[in-house]
Amino acid sequence: MSDTDTDAAQRPLTLLGLGDMGTALARTWLAAGHPVTVWNRTAAKAQALAGAGASVAADAAEAVAANDLVVVCLLDDTSVGTALDGIDLTGKDLVNLTTGTPAEGRERAAWAAQRGARFVDGGIMATPDMIGAPETGGYIFYSGSQALFEAHRTVLEVPAGARFVGTDPGHAALHDVALLSGMYGLFAGISHAFALIDGEDIAPKDLAPLLSEWLVAMGFFVANAAERLTSGDLTTGVVSNLAMQVAASGTLLRTAEEQGVSAELIRPYLDLMRRRLEADEAAHGGEDTSGVITLLKR
Amino acid sequence: MSDTDTDAAQRPLTLLGLGDMGTALARTWLAAGHPVTVWNRTAAKAQALAGAGASVAADAAEAVAANDLVVVCLLDDTSVGTALDGIDLTGKDLVNLTTGTPAEGRERAAWAAQRGARFVDGGIMATPDMIGAPETGGYIFYSGSQALFEAHRTVLEVPAGARFVGTDPGHAALHDVALLSGMYGLFAGISHAFALIDGEDIAPKDLAPLLSEWLVAMGFFVANAAERLTSGDLTTGVVSNLAMQVAASGTLLRTAEEQGVSAELIRPYLDLMRRRLEADEAAHGGEDTSGVITLLKR
Repeated sequence: MSDTDTDAAQRPLTLLGLGDMGTALARTWLAAGHPVTVWNRTAAKAQALAGAGASVAADAAEAVAANDLVVVCLLDDTSVGTALDGIDLTGKDLVNLTTGTPAEGRERAAWAAQRGARFVDGGIMATPDMIGAPETGGYIFYSGSQALFEAHRTVLEVPAGARFVGTDPGHAALHDVALLSGMYGLFAGISHAFALIDGEDIAPKDLAPLLSEWLVAMGFFVANAAERLTSGDLTTGVVSNLAMQVAASGTLLRTAEEQGVSAELIRPYLDLMRRRLEADEAAHGGEDTSGVITLLKR
Repeated sequence: MSDTDTDAAQRPLTLLGLGDMGTALARTWLAAGHPVTVWNRTAAKAQALAGAGASVAADAAEAVAANDLVVVCLLDDTSVGTALDGIDLTGKDLVNLTTGTPAEGRERAAWAAQRGARFVDGGIMATPDMIGAPETGGYIFYSGSQALFEAHRTVLEVPAGARFVGTDPGHAALHDVALLSGMYGLFAGISHAFALIDGEDIAPKDLAPLLSEWLVAMGFFVANAAERLTSGDLTTGVVSNLAMQVAASGTLLRTAEEQGVSAELIRPYLDLMRRRLEADEAAHGGEDTSGVITLLKR
């Protein structure tokens, strides 16, 4: 624990926004002994927290004035601008846990700097029920002012694990979105797999362990892609090359057709594999599929 | 080991088709002490195996006549029909490891039955380099004649693990395609994630462990979807419901736009989430996303 953290166990803070996530955050800090001043646009949710020991501010300005550490967890970035409009932020440490894009994080950081506040943006990799429950593995990405992060690290680690991913205030949101986007690809593949067996004499629960085991094994592609993107070498050690995979992809599409399943969730990737191959078969046929990544950049 | 397997260690077999996979299979059986008769449309690949102890047949008919157990690993199902056209299959045990669709597996099974042969279809969950290397975890799905599978199980387990998934001869291919389709969804998500950080001061190797860890955690969706498809209950215990996820999906699409990344790999799933929600917000808003699966069936 650093010198600045010696009083972290009792450090008071302000929390703006009491949706499901804000409420979970407030309750966790209160339960850990932190005095918490809260404000919410509709007052009823703030009153509900008074019983748990929160101080309820009359308006956002009063809430911000109450403490140096101000955590914001509102609906969207526009709500942040609206809620803090005209409020003195000089000397404040602003922690923005509102969901947003990387550009919004960067713009909000510049906006905060203009107002004399230190700023970190956060991306919450947890659902409200995972807040204050470290065993669930939930955590929050932070980026922006490293000085702010280090000064308040112990407080920030109360609701969930805290991972600092750099001084670019857009990078917390970018990490957040990258992981969620990856998740939706995974969900898409899983959904297509289960749709294929619908109406067959195959129980979803019998397919599940086979599919899980396979997807865990195929997770090697994350480290593989990272290595190939770094080295630029897409061919060394490839065991199932692009030419072979494109040739085999017809079986996947014909099976979807036979089973009466729309291929909309898997066709885009298969199409990109073919595009990569057809761009230069001699150059790309022996690659793995990580060349697809380069086709996504406009 | 069953009675029929007492001589399995020395049982001779025939293998038609010596592409990369067929060659790997032949070499593994030969190395395990099985006499193997091989045939390939272009003879050079068969001659290459003679040095490893294979008997090279002059034509497919001679190869089939040589042994009761006939393994076929050709380019596609049409090649199987062509290679075996007019050949006596009476009393043969035909193991078809040629890549194909479930319907092709079923039709080929009926075709084999008409010719007096027992038949199993296979779906190989391994690349050629994983054949004969049990530590890689590669395996082969089998379906069709259970009697054939049990009679030759020990032989079939020599090149890779053998998993029998039912008497429907289409189900080996269906399992194979379901798992591969799931994999391409996973690859699509991973690809989008890495494309998002391209050009940023974030090393792919730094994102990789975070993305891997997250995707492993989100793998819960396989068992979750199986359970919900079985019970029909899409709402109990949902912590991040469809209404919330649809609301948050705009951030993912705007981030892709900001980063100059095509959303083609993740948009189809986000679109289906929205379609499911908009079909009946009151009914579906509290569900998880497994309702998307029902939208894929035509």
